[in-house]
Amino acid sequence: MGDALVIFMPSGKRGRFAIGTPVLDAARRLGVDLDSVCGGRGICSRCQVTPAHGEFSKHGVTVREDALSEWNAVEERYRQKRGLAEGRRLGCQARVMGDVVIDVPPESQLHRQVVRKAATQRDMVMDPATRLYLVDVAEPDMHEPAGDLQRLAQSLQEQWKISGLRADIEVLKKLQPALRKGAWRVTLAVHRPQPEAAPELLDIWPGFYEGGLYGLAVDLGSTTIAAHLCDLRDGQVVASAGAMNPQIRFGEDLMSRVSYAMMNPGGAAEMTQAVRIALDTLARDMLAEAGIEPRAVLEAVVVCNPVMHHLFLGIDPVELGQAPFALATSEAVRAPLRSLDITGLNPAARLYMLPCIAGHVGADAAAVVLSAAPERQEDLVLIVDVGTNAEIILGNRERVLACSSPTGPAFEGAQISAGQRAAPGAIERLEIDPATKEPRFRIIGCDLWSDEPGFAAASAATGVTGICGSGIIEAVAEMRMAGLVDASGLIGSAAQTGTPRCEPDGRTHAYLIHDASAAGGPRIRVTQSDIRAIQLAKSALYAGARLLMDELGVERVDKVVLAGAFGAHISPKHALVLGMIPDAALERVLSAGNAAGTGARIALCSLAARTHIEALVRRIHKVETAIEPRFQEHFVAANALPHASAPYPELARIVTLPAPRFNPRDNGGDGTGRRRRGRAG
Amino acid sequence: MGDALVIFMPSGKRGRFAIGTPVLDAARRLGVDLDSVCGGRGICSRCQVTPAHGEFSKHGVTVREDALSEWNAVEERYRQKRGLAEGRRLGCQARVMGDVVIDVPPESQLHRQVVRKAATQRDMVMDPATRLYLVDVAEPDMHEPAGDLQRLAQSLQEQWKISGLRADIEVLKKLQPALRKGAWRVTLAVHRPQPEAAPELLDIWPGFYEGGLYGLAVDLGSTTIAAHLCDLRDGQVVASAGAMNPQIRFGEDLMSRVSYAMMNPGGAAEMTQAVRIALDTLARDMLAEAGIEPRAVLEAVVVCNPVMHHLFLGIDPVELGQAPFALATSEAVRAPLRSLDITGLNPAARLYMLPCIAGHVGADAAAVVLSAAPERQEDLVLIVDVGTNAEIILGNRERVLACSSPTGPAFEGAQISAGQRAAPGAIERLEIDPATKEPRFRIIGCDLWSDEPGFAAASAATGVTGICGSGIIEAVAEMRMAGLVDASGLIGSAAQTGTPRCEPDGRTHAYLIHDASAAGGPRIRVTQSDIRAIQLAKSALYAGARLLMDELGVERVDKVVLAGAFGAHISPKHALVLGMIPDAALERVLSAGNAAGTGARIALCSLAARTHIEALVRRIHKVETAIEPRFQEHFVAANALPHASAPYPELARIVTLPAPRFNPRDNGGDGTGRRRRGRAG
Repeated sequence: MGDALVIFMPSGKRGRFAIGTPVLDAARRLGVDLDSVCGGRGICSRCQVTPAHGEFSKHGVTVREDALSEWNAVEERYRQKRGLAEGRRLGCQARVMGDVVIDVPPESQLHRQVVRKAATQRDMVMDPATRLYLVDVAEPDMHEPAGDLQRLAQSLQEQWKISGLRADIEVLKKLQPALRKGAWRVTLAVHRPQPEAAPELLDIWPGFYEGGLYGLAVDLGSTTIAAHLCDLRDGQVVASAGAMNPQIRFGEDLMSRVSYAMMNPGGAAEMTQAVRIALDTLARDMLAEAGIEPRAVLEAVVVCNPVMHHLFLGIDPVELGQAPFALATSEAVRAPLRSLDITGLNPAARLYMLPCIAGHVGADAAAVVLSAAPERQEDLVLIVDVGTNAEIILGNRERVLACSSPTGPAFEGAQISAGQRAAPGAIERLEIDPATKEPRFRIIGCDLWSDEPGFAAASAATGVTGICGSGIIEAVAEMRMAGLVDASGLIGSAAQTGTPRCEPDGRTHAYLIHDASAAGGPRIRVTQSDIRAIQLAKSALYAGARLLMDELGVERVDKVVLAGAFGAHISPKHALVLGMIPDAALERVLSAGNAAGTGARIALCSLAARTHIEALVRRIHKVETAIEPRFQEHFVAANALPHASAPYPELARIVTLPAPRFNPRDNGGDGTGRRRRGRAG
Repeated sequence: MGDALVIFMPSGKRGRFAIGTPVLDAARRLGVDLDSVCGGRGICSRCQVTPAHGEFSKHGVTVREDALSEWNAVEERYRQKRGLAEGRRLGCQARVMGDVVIDVPPESQLHRQVVRKAATQRDMVMDPATRLYLVDVAEPDMHEPAGDLQRLAQSLQEQWKISGLRADIEVLKKLQPALRKGAWRVTLAVHRPQPEAAPELLDIWPGFYEGGLYGLAVDLGSTTIAAHLCDLRDGQVVASAGAMNPQIRFGEDLMSRVSYAMMNPGGAAEMTQAVRIALDTLARDMLAEAGIEPRAVLEAVVVCNPVMHHLFLGIDPVELGQAPFALATSEAVRAPLRSLDITGLNPAARLYMLPCIAGHVGADAAAVVLSAAPERQEDLVLIVDVGTNAEIILGNRERVLACSSPTGPAFEGAQISAGQRAAPGAIERLEIDPATKEPRFRIIGCDLWSDEPGFAAASAATGVTGICGSGIIEAVAEMRMAGLVDASGLIGSAAQTGTPRCEPDGRTHAYLIHDASAAGGPRIRVTQSDIRAIQLAKSALYAGARLLMDELGVERVDKVVLAGAFGAHISPKHALVLGMIPDAALERVLSAGNAAGTGARIALCSLAARTHIEALVRRIHKVETAIEPRFQEHFVAANALPHASAPYPELARIVTLPAPRFNPRDNGGDGTGRRRRGRAG
């Protein structure tokens, strides 16, 4: 009768333990995943468990009411001070007094899985590079004059099995006061830059630190900076915020920023300072709003394209503006954030940047790969992240390939006659009735379609100001499906198409979507130039994808994932009609949302994920579109708009008219787009 | 006839090599120690060799004039540009054409030994933590988009067998311009913090860097800062400089500086800033004078006592001012010097501080151990470094012990009636004629003795201003030998000693050394209080040494090494007479000069030495005098001045008078010193 059976749920792990054994001890000895920051001192409450009572015939156990020791003073103090849910016990305080079944709730699991609702539904295991530990340190002894740091390291080894602690001078300065103020009990923030690396002491607090432990996942885009503040104990996003990238004033797109750096002495440094200040300000504001003290934030993961990567690190991006597009470093970057003037976090906070895949395929693409995880899939997955350049990943369990394709800014609404950035007032969805050729659309900031009652009133605040990236794609695809555009991309005349909306525009035609000129507003049209710009962009994207498919020797992909903020808004149907992406079953074209941001969060929460993506990126086969002759071939071949009536049942229902073919000589329009391509190439 | 015999001298290593093999290649394949920074590119000239000609019957070889390939264009260019001594060849250019004997001169040896003339005559092997390497890097290739850093690391691995190079962001910024400016040939400064640690890229230069490679060895004393600039290629000291420690204005001795830190908020930071600025200024001035550019200085080793150690690192030293004298860290410290505001060197320069032995026995004592190397000796060596505290080391091959003893500042001339710091005008040597009881002395800054003709004129510039530490020791020992002081330390009256120089001084007596009062100068005397102060100091020193001897269970030591700037000036004879150190044969009492500074230089030049001293310090048995009851016993027992006539033949010749014993009651003097001891204890 000296011992009792203990069964932990949901793992089902079981063992016999001496009467009086604390539940936490039993869990540890069985390898049950039960969290603890304070190491069983009744302080941190991370080891909460729920004992079950009654008959467990399945396990052959009857659990009596007194199977655990009585509620004790430590638990009562904790309950009064911070609250403890009904039925919960502290695993370090409750002792085994008889056979018992103990449920470990998800929030008490150290390596709990965080279910994500992203493209691939891959779960995430918490395994952050930085963790908090409560440690009791031996007092100094004149007979054994080891320094305070050495005794601290010794205690960490004994109490947490973490050996070889290092500390830089900044934290050394805090060490002695903290140990004495905490009466030799301190909370440590310990960082492990790599799984095998020596653990580093980032910070120290007297006693138990209540401030928590947080990290920032940052997607540093050319246009916008998006940051998520994550709790490093459970992976939850506690706050999100975004800001414009202030580098825009130095150049809208990346290449103009590189030019700025090349043309202006100190220009790169200016851009570096601008983006650092923006990120620092964003972080400070976010923390203030969330009520979290800067000292609690010890990590940041930043993902971005190579030019932003170099500019953020203070490396002149000039080499990225010209062949052979050499990165200063392609591997993951680890650095103290304070060395990058990010001072709104803990002064010891560490930066991690994912590796870059190539000179045009950055850490953001690596984050997309980490999030979408093609290397874990049987299916052949094509992942497309569309921006000024499209990053294209193709792969499955066997092999992963990557390339970048120069799509230009058309997909972002730039170089489009009525184009604008995705902002309130911009047309983002558009349909054209195949019979009447009349358009209806929706604008950002208004839930009604333009032909619904009340639209005029609802849209009055912004008006209809232009057409954004996703809008122009839908417009061109709809024009094709409505027979307004032929396979070569030529817009028909009013006579050819039967609608006066196809109005003359110099030697070509344009399709009028919305005319607000009576009220002093714009006439929003799709011009022949707009069609050409979209054709160029989509050809580049398609050609990149085809190039990777050639490399793998395949004709079809099993799945297409559209990543990026833009990917989140592209309609898969229209992307297929346009021929932006290779043919795939419509239901297998998915949006991954901000996959780069999700990848950043995964890397923030998991050291193993960092190791994984670093090894994977080394294995990714990089294809350079600029020097592949077949890219040009695919590019030219992809110029057409193939699917007036598509091989997709869903499209077939929509596309009812026979596909026309307009003779450019009929109206003298320049349908080749060659001059333009010559310039873009 | 396809190969030839090559014999390298002085190693005698030999082997057969294909005709046409470069001498450097042959040396490498035989493991001959032949230096090269440029890796055989005819640039660095570190691989110079001297081919021998003629008959070498001992080796059974006849060397023909044409045993090496002809003087080539690369050698000629080098000779014209920088000079090449007659008979020298560049090992990377000269090729083996026939049997040959090749002499490798010492300066071409990579791991040449640097013979030191220090206490133990231990030689030093060059093995610096930072070295320069010339590397040719593969150009970037769009087919293999590894970053520049990764290709650089790959080249370093291939060309120098150094793998796993790391680089921080600061050097990453320089990488791309340097590679391109140098046409893919660069010089790297590579630092290895520990023998097993990953190599770190500290700096990069286009092409071959001509600026050299230097390091600073700094002895950061409480009073003075001494720095040596060393060439890290051959270990030579190229410049030395010293400065006062500006912390003196916060407190003359260490404890008053700790008090200043305790009493004044921000006081520790003030002292930190003061000493850093002083060291930075000293380094800048030294480099400017030596004509060496700051960028060429990549390392500094700093040794100092624990309080200076903490203050230099910016750690509040308050814990070192009170029992149990806990160090923040006892192990070696590695840090970027720029993080300590030392900016006059290469921005990436690294600091190394030797480990501290205990809270009172600092990195300076560790440096003394490294220099004197008791652990390598059969003899039992006692090493004493005298300052405000004395650090005492006792050991041999088997065991090394250390303690610190609170000697107080008397040995430095403080708390002595006519005491002063060692500066021009201070009496530093003194003799008393045993018959006439008349003194003669020498002052700092004048080579004549005071009784020699011309002294008055020669000393006129400074006058005789006081008596410094070494002077007071000699004075007390001479007084004892001349019978002016008895074994208890009591100064006799004029009647008792037979000289009017023993004049009344309150209830005791004082011995007049020099009277300049007629000219408005001081009357320089040794008072009873002075004797007591010296007795206390020497008792503490002796008791510490005895404590260590007790610990080892020995009654005698084989050798005594007096370290420290002060040790360099103490006369061994007088130290023995005074009973400062345990009895030893006079010829086995040696001065090690600035052993701490020498230890710093060794650590600067050798990574292996750092590893060695770190392991040794962990092994050193620390004895804490403050809590050892036997220390008090030894201290009390050591109060007497034992050797009026000593067991040393040399002393016996000098000491001719019978040793007197003065009865304190004869003149009412307080001969016990107890009140004073009470205060000092």
